[in-house]
Amino acid sequence: MAQAKTQAERIALKVRRKQRLVRVALGQEKADLVLKNADYINVFTGEICHGDIAVANGLVVGMDGQYEGVTEVDVSGRIVAPGFIDAHIHLESSLVSPASFARAVVPHGTTTVICDPHEIANVCGTDGMDYMIAATEGLPLDVHFMLPSCVPATPMEESGAALSWRDINAYFDHPRVLGLAEMMNYPGILMGDRKTIEKIVVSQAYHKKIDGHAPGLSGKALNAYMSAGVYSDHECDTLENALEKLRKGQFIMIREGTAAQNLEALLPLLTPQYAHRCMFATDDKHPGDLLDKGHIDYIVRKAIRLGADPILTIIVASHYAARYFLLNNKGAISPGYLADFVVLDDLKNVNVEMVFKRGRLVYDGGAVAMEEPAIDPDILGGVTGTVHMPPLTAEQLALGDAPLIGLIPGQIVTEDLGRAQGVDTAQDVVKMTVCERHHHTGHVASCYVRGYGLRCGAVATSVAHDSHNIIACGVNDVDMALAVNRLRELGGGMAVAEDGRIVAELALPVAGLVTDRPLEEVNAALERCKAAAVERGTQPGIDPFMTMSFASLPVIPTLRLTTRGVIDVNTQTIIE
Amino acid sequence: MAQAKTQAERIALKVRRKQRLVRVALGQEKADLVLKNADYINVFTGEICHGDIAVANGLVVGMDGQYEGVTEVDVSGRIVAPGFIDAHIHLESSLVSPASFARAVVPHGTTTVICDPHEIANVCGTDGMDYMIAATEGLPLDVHFMLPSCVPATPMEESGAALSWRDINAYFDHPRVLGLAEMMNYPGILMGDRKTIEKIVVSQAYHKKIDGHAPGLSGKALNAYMSAGVYSDHECDTLENALEKLRKGQFIMIREGTAAQNLEALLPLLTPQYAHRCMFATDDKHPGDLLDKGHIDYIVRKAIRLGADPILTIIVASHYAARYFLLNNKGAISPGYLADFVVLDDLKNVNVEMVFKRGRLVYDGGAVAMEEPAIDPDILGGVTGTVHMPPLTAEQLALGDAPLIGLIPGQIVTEDLGRAQGVDTAQDVVKMTVCERHHHTGHVASCYVRGYGLRCGAVATSVAHDSHNIIACGVNDVDMALAVNRLRELGGGMAVAEDGRIVAELALPVAGLVTDRPLEEVNAALERCKAAAVERGTQPGIDPFMTMSFASLPVIPTLRLTTRGVIDVNTQTIIE
Repeated sequence: MAQAKTQAERIALKVRRKQRLVRVALGQEKADLVLKNADYINVFTGEICHGDIAVANGLVVGMDGQYEGVTEVDVSGRIVAPGFIDAHIHLESSLVSPASFARAVVPHGTTTVICDPHEIANVCGTDGMDYMIAATEGLPLDVHFMLPSCVPATPMEESGAALSWRDINAYFDHPRVLGLAEMMNYPGILMGDRKTIEKIVVSQAYHKKIDGHAPGLSGKALNAYMSAGVYSDHECDTLENALEKLRKGQFIMIREGTAAQNLEALLPLLTPQYAHRCMFATDDKHPGDLLDKGHIDYIVRKAIRLGADPILTIIVASHYAARYFLLNNKGAISPGYLADFVVLDDLKNVNVEMVFKRGRLVYDGGAVAMEEPAIDPDILGGVTGTVHMPPLTAEQLALGDAPLIGLIPGQIVTEDLGRAQGVDTAQDVVKMTVCERHHHTGHVASCYVRGYGLRCGAVATSVAHDSHNIIACGVNDVDMALAVNRLRELGGGMAVAEDGRIVAELALPVAGLVTDRPLEEVNAALERCKAAAVERGTQPGIDPFMTMSFASLPVIPTLRLTTRGVIDVNTQTIIE
Repeated sequence: MAQAKTQAERIALKVRRKQRLVRVALGQEKADLVLKNADYINVFTGEICHGDIAVANGLVVGMDGQYEGVTEVDVSGRIVAPGFIDAHIHLESSLVSPASFARAVVPHGTTTVICDPHEIANVCGTDGMDYMIAATEGLPLDVHFMLPSCVPATPMEESGAALSWRDINAYFDHPRVLGLAEMMNYPGILMGDRKTIEKIVVSQAYHKKIDGHAPGLSGKALNAYMSAGVYSDHECDTLENALEKLRKGQFIMIREGTAAQNLEALLPLLTPQYAHRCMFATDDKHPGDLLDKGHIDYIVRKAIRLGADPILTIIVASHYAARYFLLNNKGAISPGYLADFVVLDDLKNVNVEMVFKRGRLVYDGGAVAMEEPAIDPDILGGVTGTVHMPPLTAEQLALGDAPLIGLIPGQIVTEDLGRAQGVDTAQDVVKMTVCERHHHTGHVASCYVRGYGLRCGAVATSVAHDSHNIIACGVNDVDMALAVNRLRELGGGMAVAEDGRIVAELALPVAGLVTDRPLEEVNAALERCKAAAVERGTQPGIDPFMTMSFASLPVIPTLRLTTRGVIDVNTQTIIE
């Protein structure tokens, strides 16, 4: 039959596929692929086993003894491992589309990522979800989704969209949706906030996972958060907090990404007593970091270098992540499992030589074998042209006495430095402005900032957590307005302006967050933008774009600038 | 609201329940129950932890620190463990209804059983399923179901019903249905038999588990069986076979029941390298065995006595079984998990002192606190009065030259001893007869048997695997007909006759397999029946009923008697 329409037809079709698996497993028919003479990691026993790995219909059908295949690849002397899994990533942090992301991470052995499309959902709501689902169809990388739980992050923010349980409810029946993403609003849970708990309840009703985000939460507060139904945490930065959460029953995502690195602190978890409740996650992975270090393979290498057992580490990087998410046909080399393999040179260097996805060789040192997904124009339309604001005039930026926010090198917390009366580069005081860009409200708010270091011109970005309004820092109002208006023209991105002209820019036309250009090209443009900012004086220890991108997130102390003005995060009030 | 009807109402109701959990976990409100000063087994780390275990709405909400409860139970000096789980049992093997079974096993710490209602399904088909589901509602024991995969066991049998994928399809949406029960027909899988594979495919379509049953299966045949989608095995009687299955990815159910005991052979699996892929199962548990030894607690005690680590053994008996079946709120003492606890005296004797089910004390040394489930009369009607056959006359049992089956003490395999010409107690040759009892066909077949030992009278039972027709052995046709006809009157059961009268009997009115009488009473009647048979000469090493109950199952070598005549199992042909 061309297409199985009834349940009976679907069953008949699947029976025929199974019958082929049985014949190939029995050696009655050639496999599609055989990895000959494989030394492979047995995730069930922690051993290295040896045999021919036979694959049919994209699934492993047998490992022991000898098999013949239409395609045979001799992997003697190599180590075959299950494909690596990133348990939690905001894919938008790479600044590229899912297809470009796949091209970048598949060569690192990643075959599955669990993605929280929180950024694009803050801009585009369900249209962002629809785009992410469409843009990840048919990639050589399985992208699963946890549905964003906190859009917007707080009611103080003017985001592009807000998601209620009714909005996310429409997505749970998608086969790649695995649950509810990091429940950042743990204060809401502890206060019994209805709208927060509703999202957990609806996710549980579908028997899905609920991920946590609760830095330092402990004792009875942790009990309450877990009782509400939160099963994991990726915010452990001390062994003590990780052990409390693990003992109580949370799964621990050991996070090692661009913005936060917890592997070293949590290394003692990579031992038999604890590792079975752990997995790896990057959370955020910026272009340069991805290109320079790698992805999950980098975490595996670093863990081994720090002294973790290589086999156990690879099991954490694959099997345990799959098991947590109930991806029961992933994370093992075993009959019936997906033929997602990484071929490594050895267990010391952990260099990825080949990657197989569903039995297809997708990487062997060159470009990733893949096709661009065809995205419905209506769906693409929902995430492009997302900058909806009137042109900004220099006059709107006029500012007298106003609060002064202090940036701290290497950190994202800020200081309350009182007030300032104007830009004063000698005192390292520049202006910061946030422009609402989703709903054409014309809301613009400004203040002063110290510690940014800019001496001339202006820097602007539409990547500004979590609402992704346009934020800019500048020495003069004309360049600030120019940089912001350039982003308005580009549909979002990053820009540096000086003396009335744009000196560097990166267009991020999808939601003002990502582009479908290749990662290398995006990184080069980003580096040019950063260099342009650094040339104009931004402080060492400050990423001119990333630091600014957190300056409007009113959940991190002390002061933040939103479209409504400067917020004192500790009191959640606007400073007049 | 009295009853939540819309999704929104259900969500609102559940949110309110969650809000209470949060308040209790935070200590803002008293718990329903607190186990004070508990030393409890932490299944996540293998440690013994200490604290007050607080329960609200039947769920654990916190363990550390101190909690106050409406009810407080001091468990100082005891060990608290998660409730025990039997991963695979044919509940009908206890000869009692689910309620009587619950009364018997809850005092042994069993709070969950995974049941394959294969016996009653062979008699009553979907009516048997419906009864089992109704008869297990609201018990202090959670009975989950795996749907019978092989009804009838072979096409050679005249069973009461046959189940296709369409029949089982109607049950997968039941919250207590977890998958497809032991796929005994591995030859069917290996031959690619459509009707066999269909049942796996439909179970997979619901993302359910599929249990295996493949004694000794190995190499490429095992690969093929697993490729078809079989995830576990409970038929390992050698460590070698268990390790091959475990290495390849099957979960191993270590079976220790009445008919088969594999714990000693598989004890090396109870080590950290392998135990996480193991669980315990009894498969069959007869009344006397249950009363004398216990249930899963007996396996735990025996494993510890044989040298296994006590904490690891208890984790196998609870958490690992729950995890395999994706019972994600069972098998741990952790916030959000069901408050199913066993309070043990210590880790050496493992005596069960108290049992809590969903936070309710259901056993503390006396009778189990429970109510009998109310079963719809129509559903009960579907499983009673199931003996449909004309009265048997002595004349129908006339037999001249016929095959002679040899029974072997302590085994269920039989020997082909050629032929006999008549009953000859001096040579230990008696008559055996099987009467079709489901469809009023009047089919009766007889042969001779050696090794049973009967010297006078007759013995009959309606428990006769897997079709549960009535089987009888006897020295004279009048007593054989009498015993069979008595079972016809009783609606099934067991009987011993001599000299024209019934000398002992046990009525099993539900499907001819079980009764709702208490286990002690049933066992006493069973023992009277057995004694009556032994007094009449049945061999030591032969259970007069159980051995006979396997004599008609045409999947175990060498010869079996079915309603169609004597089957040579190896050739699957009828011996004329």
